[in-house]
Amino acid sequence: MEENGAVRRTDDGTAAVTSVDETLRARASRVVPGGMYGHLNAAELPRVFPQFYVSGEGCRILDVDGNEYIDFMCSWGPIVLGHNHPAVEAAVAAETLRGVCLNGPGEVLVELAELLTAEVTHAEWAMFGKNGTDATNMGLRIARAATGHSKVLIARRAYHGIGTWSLPPGSDGVTEADRADTIYFEYNDLDSLDAAIAEAGDDIAAVIVTPIRHEVHRDLDLATPEFAAGVRSRCDATGAQLMIDDIRCGFRMDLAGSWEGLGIRPDLTAYSKALANGHPLAALVGSEHLREAAGRITATGSFWFAAPPMAAAIATIQTLKAEDGIARMAASGLKFQQGLRDQAKSHGFEVSVTGPPQLPFMSFAADASEEKAFAWTSECAARGVYLHPFHNWFLNAAHDEPAIDDALARTDAAFAALRTGFGSD
Amino acid sequence: MEENGAVRRTDDGTAAVTSVDETLRARASRVVPGGMYGHLNAAELPRVFPQFYVSGEGCRILDVDGNEYIDFMCSWGPIVLGHNHPAVEAAVAAETLRGVCLNGPGEVLVELAELLTAEVTHAEWAMFGKNGTDATNMGLRIARAATGHSKVLIARRAYHGIGTWSLPPGSDGVTEADRADTIYFEYNDLDSLDAAIAEAGDDIAAVIVTPIRHEVHRDLDLATPEFAAGVRSRCDATGAQLMIDDIRCGFRMDLAGSWEGLGIRPDLTAYSKALANGHPLAALVGSEHLREAAGRITATGSFWFAAPPMAAAIATIQTLKAEDGIARMAASGLKFQQGLRDQAKSHGFEVSVTGPPQLPFMSFAADASEEKAFAWTSECAARGVYLHPFHNWFLNAAHDEPAIDDALARTDAAFAALRTGFGSD
Repeated sequence: MEENGAVRRTDDGTAAVTSVDETLRARASRVVPGGMYGHLNAAELPRVFPQFYVSGEGCRILDVDGNEYIDFMCSWGPIVLGHNHPAVEAAVAAETLRGVCLNGPGEVLVELAELLTAEVTHAEWAMFGKNGTDATNMGLRIARAATGHSKVLIARRAYHGIGTWSLPPGSDGVTEADRADTIYFEYNDLDSLDAAIAEAGDDIAAVIVTPIRHEVHRDLDLATPEFAAGVRSRCDATGAQLMIDDIRCGFRMDLAGSWEGLGIRPDLTAYSKALANGHPLAALVGSEHLREAAGRITATGSFWFAAPPMAAAIATIQTLKAEDGIARMAASGLKFQQGLRDQAKSHGFEVSVTGPPQLPFMSFAADASEEKAFAWTSECAARGVYLHPFHNWFLNAAHDEPAIDDALARTDAAFAALRTGFGSD
Repeated sequence: MEENGAVRRTDDGTAAVTSVDETLRARASRVVPGGMYGHLNAAELPRVFPQFYVSGEGCRILDVDGNEYIDFMCSWGPIVLGHNHPAVEAAVAAETLRGVCLNGPGEVLVELAELLTAEVTHAEWAMFGKNGTDATNMGLRIARAATGHSKVLIARRAYHGIGTWSLPPGSDGVTEADRADTIYFEYNDLDSLDAAIAEAGDDIAAVIVTPIRHEVHRDLDLATPEFAAGVRSRCDATGAQLMIDDIRCGFRMDLAGSWEGLGIRPDLTAYSKALANGHPLAALVGSEHLREAAGRITATGSFWFAAPPMAAAIATIQTLKAEDGIARMAASGLKFQQGLRDQAKSHGFEVSVTGPPQLPFMSFAADASEEKAFAWTSECAARGVYLHPFHNWFLNAAHDEPAIDDALARTDAAFAALRTGFGSD
């Protein structure tokens, strides 16, 4: 791969005025509020991070100015096998040739539901939507329909989509009533969960947790076995339905369930992102006792029954299994994590490398303002490695050993550049 | 086209036990709550309506048993140019080859936002999601963010997606708080709107209306000019933001805006369904004064920035314009509507044919139980014409004159069969 910078970047890694990305940002600023929105908005990142892209192949992506990156964000999760994966795209193309949106689902809906209920240990049924938010919203509604109760308990600062019940206090356009039934606890803290349960009284419908603590601007924490078991036992005691929001971690940790290694099974699991290797699909799967309530809620969308993304999901899961994709992501991620630790040490920086290897993250010590994180990830981006300063990263199954070696050579140079700017710790 | 029935249907139009559709329904009943869910659930339709499909081409679809239908539902709206439209699919394939989900949007996001703001008269900016519900939810949040108010006024029984604020009273899994800020009025009734405004007091954020009254189980009503003008003037007087929920009618009535013919422009318009000829996409467009508030809300989804559906939308809109698609749908729809009126009369049935010709509907007089509607649409389905007994229908631009003639020949036979069963009115 060529060193980046020929087209868009100047020597100091900043953007040339004439870049395609710059031109598109200017055009977007006229017709898109704020110039862009949502989690892929590059405005909150240093200017060296592009906003617009043209293509991806395996673990590499290309921006509109022709700069290539080893991609450790995978579109913030969806790409789990690699960009433009042949088996997935062939399955999608075959379905698409027949029609993208008919008057009912195709056989693939049944096949995918059968596959998910076979793979996910607790799952006896499945429903599909388009957004992760569709899945978490459906799950909450089913828990409420089943229990007849209203309150939902979520970890403070956890992200569960854009359902207004889950958005942070003070979010624009969210009313008091929207969040009236939401009660917070602290992740990995059973005392705080007990307090939340007490506050809910006899009106508790659901406890919703992510399988790991993966807030932005923070190191990742695995769920402690005590916490996972304690959440389960408290749900059993109160009748609250336990939903794992596996939208970010699903299909990267354990196909049987992200808490299966802890021996804990939820009542509902929400999936999206990696389910169909980038094709738009979400799934909610549930235990048998919630089947009846699941059949009662109103849940639908114009494109929810389209076959091509379901064909993509079947191909994605089958490929992950056939190629032992999760184990390979874990091995590559472990090598990447250890490489970063070693490099940081050799350059005199104190860092914290956390998270499951498939979804790693690195932060700098004494970097509350994230100045070093922004500077180092900028140096990485300028060298063709796409890492995020404050959001966990994602590997995909195309991150093979040569790709990790290539990435580590560049991150090492980024550490060296950082030392020039900041000195060592 | 062959007469349907060879594979699946028996002589009386009921299903053979060994049909593929039946087998898939049985499999689905084990892994999908209730066997199916959502608006494409065939369980609420007579058994002659299939649940599962394999393909579509132009204005025709094929079910899993090989029965072909002239399709007047178009997947409940999304297919506006015809199934498997070459220009749309070519645009999608070209984008898909490059990647389906990258670390930011492609140039097509900017192009599509420019196209929508150029076509839709009031629109100065655009945002994109996946579901119609994404667009209506975003619009309401923007109206609340802009006004600092909470209340939303909607027509009783109108469908605005599955945002809990808009679901009917008594919906399973919806709490009191979810609907605490929703106030109802009657469509085409300004007195009831005034009463709703009085109830909202000084806390009114938005009035949300569909461009026509298109409830299920009811004839369609166009908005009266007085109603449309009255809604606009009351929004101007109170500061409420007017959103047209154009998810069902958009791209079939007027590209400039579905109330443009009435001279009324909203502050927000929500689109989805036909926007990308079946590819999963929604759009919210807005007037200049809401740009700042639009930039403040949290609105995002895993697949919202994917390029292929945006390429599909650009191709869809350009093709609609180039081929005068709306006018052609209107002409074909008018011929179909008049043909049905004539046939009903000749067979001695009193019917009501309503709606814009592009989104027609027909009901029988004195048919409160919808017995005749179910019987006649069943006779139509058995003869290869897919019409719905209680939901408005949709034409697409591939419904040419021969297709309408073909359909009318079959609907005539269905009327004859209905007379055998019911006698004339």
